[in-house]
Amino acid sequence: VTDTGIIDFGIGQPEDRILPRELLREAAQHALAGPGNDYLQYGPEQGARSLRDALAGFLSRHYGHEVSPDELLVTNGASHGLDLVLSRYTRPGDVVVVEAPTYFFGLDVLHGRYVRLVSVPVDEEGLDTGALRTVIEREKPALIYTIPVFHNPTGVSLSDARRRQLVELAEAYRIPVVADEVYQLTAEPDRLLPPLRRYDPRQVLSLGSFSKILGPGVRLGWIECTTGHVAKLRDDGVLRSGGGASPMTGAIVETAIRRGLQDQFLATVRDIYDRRRRCACEALRRYLPEGVRVTYPDGGYYVWLELPAGTDPRAVRVDALAAGVGFRPGHIFSIDGSFASCLRLCFTYYPEEVLVTGIVRLAKVITSHLPRCS
Amino acid sequence: VTDTGIIDFGIGQPEDRILPRELLREAAQHALAGPGNDYLQYGPEQGARSLRDALAGFLSRHYGHEVSPDELLVTNGASHGLDLVLSRYTRPGDVVVVEAPTYFFGLDVLHGRYVRLVSVPVDEEGLDTGALRTVIEREKPALIYTIPVFHNPTGVSLSDARRRQLVELAEAYRIPVVADEVYQLTAEPDRLLPPLRRYDPRQVLSLGSFSKILGPGVRLGWIECTTGHVAKLRDDGVLRSGGGASPMTGAIVETAIRRGLQDQFLATVRDIYDRRRRCACEALRRYLPEGVRVTYPDGGYYVWLELPAGTDPRAVRVDALAAGVGFRPGHIFSIDGSFASCLRLCFTYYPEEVLVTGIVRLAKVITSHLPRCS
Repeated sequence: VTDTGIIDFGIGQPEDRILPRELLREAAQHALAGPGNDYLQYGPEQGARSLRDALAGFLSRHYGHEVSPDELLVTNGASHGLDLVLSRYTRPGDVVVVEAPTYFFGLDVLHGRYVRLVSVPVDEEGLDTGALRTVIEREKPALIYTIPVFHNPTGVSLSDARRRQLVELAEAYRIPVVADEVYQLTAEPDRLLPPLRRYDPRQVLSLGSFSKILGPGVRLGWIECTTGHVAKLRDDGVLRSGGGASPMTGAIVETAIRRGLQDQFLATVRDIYDRRRRCACEALRRYLPEGVRVTYPDGGYYVWLELPAGTDPRAVRVDALAAGVGFRPGHIFSIDGSFASCLRLCFTYYPEEVLVTGIVRLAKVITSHLPRCS
Repeated sequence: VTDTGIIDFGIGQPEDRILPRELLREAAQHALAGPGNDYLQYGPEQGARSLRDALAGFLSRHYGHEVSPDELLVTNGASHGLDLVLSRYTRPGDVVVVEAPTYFFGLDVLHGRYVRLVSVPVDEEGLDTGALRTVIEREKPALIYTIPVFHNPTGVSLSDARRRQLVELAEAYRIPVVADEVYQLTAEPDRLLPPLRRYDPRQVLSLGSFSKILGPGVRLGWIECTTGHVAKLRDDGVLRSGGGASPMTGAIVETAIRRGLQDQFLATVRDIYDRRRRCACEALRRYLPEGVRVTYPDGGYYVWLELPAGTDPRAVRVDALAAGVGFRPGHIFSIDGSFASCLRLCFTYYPEEVLVTGIVRLAKVITSHLPRCS
């Protein structure tokens, strides 16, 4: 709840209260007391070997398949990862495929590289691979940006069949796919499909991050991709000049992994996120009026709503704020202002009782805006 | 000395041994034990206010003029700072002025933004502002990239008169100047001119970094510029999506500043760097043969040598490595392969006795390659 009393479902963050300060203090204390101090020097562009070893072990355990430290490159988080891939795989004016809808800040990162964006729809099975094929043949894109798991903003995950089709297309046309998989680790592996690289590792550059499983302010993430892609990515001016992404932070996170602290905390956040998700979905089912289309997610951070035709989404937003509840309006998730009748709710930032209060407020406002039968 | 016994003056780094692990452990322990944990959340794009307050105080003390926290934006180091300015102030194809010679990794960062580079010579007073004026009028550059203090690779500092001319030109033509001032704090203030913004703050974006005064692996730096420039810079996709540059590292560095640890360590590194610089210069004066032109620096990291005409620089390099001494060849510091007869030596990475041994080796090789009188 913000200072003004507004419950803002627009905030796409973990709750402040659960962020693991003590865990990181313990990790830092051990990391910075070790015998070496390599992490205070310029490091390898790819990230320290010992961090990549620890991270590979952690990912192998949780992904359920072997991850190689040679196929990992350390980043300052998924947004840096996306920007780095854009920098190395596109030139200004190149076409990049994005999803409709897609992560709105991702669009800002893409615009910063002066690429031309072409969108492909997302449905209840995720990215529409049939439409993707048409776009590939017409536009010859340099890159595909997709969020295959607990998609931001819709919450859907790419189906098994679509995953197969996507990697087949990527390989057939030799188009790298940036798979934003930052929500992959937020749910138990038996509740979701494996990461996209399991289907075919060759063209998939998987973006991962500690933001959702440790804390956003840690600003550390990774790209998992073939050694060929790693070689291309690490030959980046900023990484070369700076000696890799945040070696000192890397040493702290490595220690958190090696001491089992990351595993413990992962179990904690999964449990919290799952309870909040179920609570939010139940409240939406109970309180929302008929006619609102809800995409109920199996995990991640978000629920996507579509207001019935004839409802004025701007008026809903204004009245919702007046009633003390906020959300992200749908149009920001598109390159052309589409999805104006949609809205994104984040269910991870608030405890359950606040989620319910906020959803009751929202439901009331939406109900009052429903088009009357004439 | 590397594992192979080579003394590599090409390494442009602080010595591993002096990097302050204990200082950072102490800072981390206090930073991560405080009552709040904001630094684990997404932060403001500009960097946390409390960090900027502490940094402004630190810079005000050492620069000798008031630095405002509102005029600071936190980065992941100077290379990230340069890339960020390029991203926000240039479009692909725009002209950017660089110095000849200039920092070689800076060129990689510039190439990554698809700008067109035009160079202006550096002489013993720094950037040639007369030549700069001609280039500005002809090329209408979008940006000027300069290293006004302890220039990399030549070691020279921009003179007082040139500083005045540079900021006058920048203001007259409204061209932002990226001033890479990462070596400003490495020497006592009475030994060098004030930072470029003191001459005119309006068009100067000053890049600073903790790499030279704390440790490169910390990966934290700043840009000091007007609030107008800050507003433009912070509207960057990666900063917005990620919530600023490394908030957790920022909290640790803030604590290092607030507890006086950064001030203490600054005195230590200044003393070490100064003794090494004087030792290297003395050895070069004593052992180098006549005819080698040396630019003796007043601070920073580097000495720049020019071999006499008729000396084969490639042969010198090969024989130097065989004799156990390395350096950075001059041509990498240019956009067109100029400065082939020059070489850059770094004097901060080795203790004094190693500096002397290396310089003796190098002097012997150069002497053996001098053109004979015919």
